[in-house]
Amino acid sequence: MSQTKSLDAGVTRSDLPMSDGRTIRYYDSQNRTRSAVDQRPVEEQPGIGELRLDPLLNEWVVMAAHRQGRVFLPPKELCPLCPTRADLLSEIPDSEYEVVVFDNRSPSLRAPSGDWALPDIVGTDTDPGTAAGKCEVVCFTDNHGGSFGELSERQVRTLMEAWRDRVRDLSQESYIRHIAPFENRGEEVGVTLFHPHGQIYAYSYLPPRVIKMLEIAKTHHEETGRILFDDVVARELRDGDRIIARNEHWVAFVPYAARYPFEIHLAPLSPVPDLAALSAEQADAFAPISIEVMRRLDGVFGIPMAYIATWHQAPVREGRDLLRLHWQITSVRRAPGKLKYLAGSESAMGAFIMDLKPEQSAGQLRDVVL
Amino acid sequence: MSQTKSLDAGVTRSDLPMSDGRTIRYYDSQNRTRSAVDQRPVEEQPGIGELRLDPLLNEWVVMAAHRQGRVFLPPKELCPLCPTRADLLSEIPDSEYEVVVFDNRSPSLRAPSGDWALPDIVGTDTDPGTAAGKCEVVCFTDNHGGSFGELSERQVRTLMEAWRDRVRDLSQESYIRHIAPFENRGEEVGVTLFHPHGQIYAYSYLPPRVIKMLEIAKTHHEETGRILFDDVVARELRDGDRIIARNEHWVAFVPYAARYPFEIHLAPLSPVPDLAALSAEQADAFAPISIEVMRRLDGVFGIPMAYIATWHQAPVREGRDLLRLHWQITSVRRAPGKLKYLAGSESAMGAFIMDLKPEQSAGQLRDVVL
Repeated sequence: MSQTKSLDAGVTRSDLPMSDGRTIRYYDSQNRTRSAVDQRPVEEQPGIGELRLDPLLNEWVVMAAHRQGRVFLPPKELCPLCPTRADLLSEIPDSEYEVVVFDNRSPSLRAPSGDWALPDIVGTDTDPGTAAGKCEVVCFTDNHGGSFGELSERQVRTLMEAWRDRVRDLSQESYIRHIAPFENRGEEVGVTLFHPHGQIYAYSYLPPRVIKMLEIAKTHHEETGRILFDDVVARELRDGDRIIARNEHWVAFVPYAARYPFEIHLAPLSPVPDLAALSAEQADAFAPISIEVMRRLDGVFGIPMAYIATWHQAPVREGRDLLRLHWQITSVRRAPGKLKYLAGSESAMGAFIMDLKPEQSAGQLRDVVL
Repeated sequence: MSQTKSLDAGVTRSDLPMSDGRTIRYYDSQNRTRSAVDQRPVEEQPGIGELRLDPLLNEWVVMAAHRQGRVFLPPKELCPLCPTRADLLSEIPDSEYEVVVFDNRSPSLRAPSGDWALPDIVGTDTDPGTAAGKCEVVCFTDNHGGSFGELSERQVRTLMEAWRDRVRDLSQESYIRHIAPFENRGEEVGVTLFHPHGQIYAYSYLPPRVIKMLEIAKTHHEETGRILFDDVVARELRDGDRIIARNEHWVAFVPYAARYPFEIHLAPLSPVPDLAALSAEQADAFAPISIEVMRRLDGVFGIPMAYIATWHQAPVREGRDLLRLHWQITSVRRAPGKLKYLAGSESAMGAFIMDLKPEQSAGQLRDVVL
């Protein structure tokens, strides 16, 4: 029998053990009893990776060599994210599900054992650290051929509650400093499983991009007394020509200096630091506009768009009043048969070149007939 | 008739006009007279793009919408980088060449006209700037099916002299702050032309990665009195187990905290700020070791390896004694049928996850039988 917990919006969470010691969490929109037993043989869990400091950039790189042999684009009959069937023992023991979350079987980051501290990060003679953190898989539909854009509002609302629950829980772990829920979609961005799913990376260090955003937001606040992201949203609302969707609580826009041919930021109109801090009304209002945005994206070329959709949040324990929650969707597809690659300029220099003007891609996204 | 100039190592450079006003520079290892006339009709050159500031990261993004329609993977019969033939009027008017360099026909960055200044880069109300700079194409073999690894030492030496010449010339332009010669190879990294070729991006701003490397090198120097990159090379020489090739003047290693499954840095043992500063002996010694490194890379899986090979140099006018020249080759191929993608963690958070240990990939590279 599962342990059951009540969340907002009528969602319940039921926890059950998996055969290798992990926990599967079912998030259901109607109170359900979950009891399906993981029938798979017990399997050893992979070891923990290491963190190495790149001294030239002062950035941690995770070394997770145990991931190299992970499952890679299995056929539908062997999909580990489909519900369990007579002929398939998958990661999800039940025969159907709404939303489930469990630890990644080949995680880049794992919970550390015992006392844990990140080594000092300076210079060229650092020792490797332990790749502490958590990597969770978020299955948001049991439909193997489905997509985020095809979810019902009710499904997105349940997913939102699952995200909020995970952010609240992971924020309690002393070794977690930053949490990023994201979804990779499409072979073009390297998915290794076709079944639509998201992930949550909970880092024991501030990711390089977060460090930079935090520094800049801090300087902006010291100089102007204002929060940088609020100024960014204010400019988008003022300019108007890059907005692609809006409702009472959220606005979706292509940012002024987008880096990708199709890039959409979805921000709450009343800013909050993270998913856990959203009001019930904001959480509700996310469902219709997120579905609309995803449908617009797929509508531009009439083909499923490869994308990376990431929640940017304030870190767990610092910069809570400097960084703001927003959902960032980036797509590398610049035309039906063409992708934008991060080649010499972007990859080696960090200098992005865009082939489409943001006003132009915003227009294309607005023009999609839903 | 061409204007001819003598460079080191017996290389001569001959300049000829192209029909749209650009200049083609032939670099020859034996004194040659180049006179082939560009027979193509006069064509208008594209306009200049704009620079927009991403306020969240305080980084310039180049908007070059005129590039969207550029030539994309043309068949061999229409290759613009092959020498001109009876049935093909290409970018190179002569019927054979060793190394040629000319402005990109669809450049991301262009020479500005008149007085030019970068706008102040702060906050959310910045105006776009002009995308000033230079983008050059470096054709290093007239063999359409060739590759860097298949060049002769003489060809690499001529290419090296072309790079050095371009760095010297571009460094004279008052609007250029940083120069990055690079080569993208393979559809996997987004080449739009199959013919092997390199590029030179000369930026009017410091690229984000250079800014960061410069800041860290400065701090390291203030704290230790030493140059960071020299300490990095010293560590690699001391550890030894990531070194894959070495000669009297250069050492090639997989860095301690590599970000890519196959990543090789090739550094001169006597450090210099940029290509122009290399001694004749260093320039000579680059040829055999660079060819060896490229052959080792192709040998790992016995297939042509997709890669980005970039010269990291000190900026043109600052940090000359803090940053060091090195050649960085990164490959996204982690196994014969598998690529490493920059997905959620890398792309949105800047947090790299590596599936192969650097010592392991160094071993694979060393084990290749040449």
